[in-house]
Amino acid sequence: MARSTLYQLVASELRRTIYSGVLGPGDQLPTEAELMSAHQVSRNTVRLALGELVNEGLVTRTPRRGTVVRERRPLLMHPQRELQPQPGETREAFAWAVSQEGRAPSQEIEVSIVHPSEEIASRLELPDDELAVVRRRLRYVDGQPYNTNDSYFPLTLVSGSEIARPGDIGRGANRVLEELGHPQVRVVDDIWARMPTSSESERLQLQLGTPVVVYVRVGYDEEGTPVRVAVSVLPADKHLIRYELESR
Amino acid sequence: MARSTLYQLVASELRRTIYSGVLGPGDQLPTEAELMSAHQVSRNTVRLALGELVNEGLVTRTPRRGTVVRERRPLLMHPQRELQPQPGETREAFAWAVSQEGRAPSQEIEVSIVHPSEEIASRLELPDDELAVVRRRLRYVDGQPYNTNDSYFPLTLVSGSEIARPGDIGRGANRVLEELGHPQVRVVDDIWARMPTSSESERLQLQLGTPVVVYVRVGYDEEGTPVRVAVSVLPADKHLIRYELESR
Repeated sequence: MARSTLYQLVASELRRTIYSGVLGPGDQLPTEAELMSAHQVSRNTVRLALGELVNEGLVTRTPRRGTVVRERRPLLMHPQRELQPQPGETREAFAWAVSQEGRAPSQEIEVSIVHPSEEIASRLELPDDELAVVRRRLRYVDGQPYNTNDSYFPLTLVSGSEIARPGDIGRGANRVLEELGHPQVRVVDDIWARMPTSSESERLQLQLGTPVVVYVRVGYDEEGTPVRVAVSVLPADKHLIRYELESR
Repeated sequence: MARSTLYQLVASELRRTIYSGVLGPGDQLPTEAELMSAHQVSRNTVRLALGELVNEGLVTRTPRRGTVVRERRPLLMHPQRELQPQPGETREAFAWAVSQEGRAPSQEIEVSIVHPSEEIASRLELPDDELAVVRRRLRYVDGQPYNTNDSYFPLTLVSGSEIARPGDIGRGANRVLEELGHPQVRVVDDIWARMPTSSESERLQLQLGTPVVVYVRVGYDEEGTPVRVAVSVLPADKHLIRYELESR
């Protein structure tokens, strides 16, 4: 993590203590005074760090009980960060987000050439009978199936590139699109939820009654042409999506 | 709608045709040539307008079948627009979004002073035993219950203002916060999904097996103090959340 500020480093250490299980649900974190002396930082830095964890839903804070680890530990997704890669970071966004939390990402990937469904064709603005390359990923965290991500690309755009070949692309498909002259400069994210299909339940080993969040990102290049449609299926009990917006 | 461009006006008319039911699911829209002559606009303008409708999930386009109205008609939420009010528009965001679609918004509102839950207190960074004002809204579209929005404010901040009084605030609570010297300059949006509670099912008249999307926005003023926590419960079959991001 290049260029982290001091409070982010403190937050990051505390986060690891929680994700590694050293501190479990209901456990108290050290007091502000203890954290100040352990990390040799100011009270303000400690408060900023704890504020991060509160915002991530990892802990709650009350003056009486102090800072306490929460029960719920969903994977926090920051769709904005995919567009603004961390400096020096070359891994794709999911792997990065998971390892940030001290957990181990892995994935199975399957690359095919398909006639896309009407919905995908419409989002990709593909003429009739045009083919797409789809990279279907089943992603694991600490060995457990976690979510799926199917990314579609116009075949004419990516044929002959790494995107149309089987196997992982370490630096992510978005970098390959850039190298092909089609960086995504604008994305539209649609988010909704529904009950899973039976094949999703099986593939993701869902408990009965667990809904999924469907998150579709369409990426457009400088010409306004859609170059990628990514469909993620996120079991609702394991994911939290966060956007941060500033008024202009 | 101040300062609409030509294609937006065309899109807006087509949208009304769909939402009013003149064109139903599976129906074809007029051809590009017909739309050009009906609206006296260029082919490019027609295409931009149709592109809007595709992006909103209202229609699909294929060269063979033309432009066809889709089955699914969720309410499209643009959480970004709440931060960037439309010029000249004084209504709050939900009412505006619904009437944009040619549908009729209404709401029931209930204002109380409460001891907030630990989660809300934590997000509002409220000291122990501090009270909050909550404005609980049940919102209707065309007379049908649609979603709920509970907004929490620190009592010390809003006591004596319109926010702490019963009844609707036509220009929206965010404007009142501005007038109190606490404009929200940054928001953090968290989105997840779950099954509804039984009281939610009843209140929102949900069909069995319909999940809800929970959407929580925390608004911060210029000092970085949280001034509002808004919790929306959105039946998943009726809502679509959209963010548009540009790379920097």
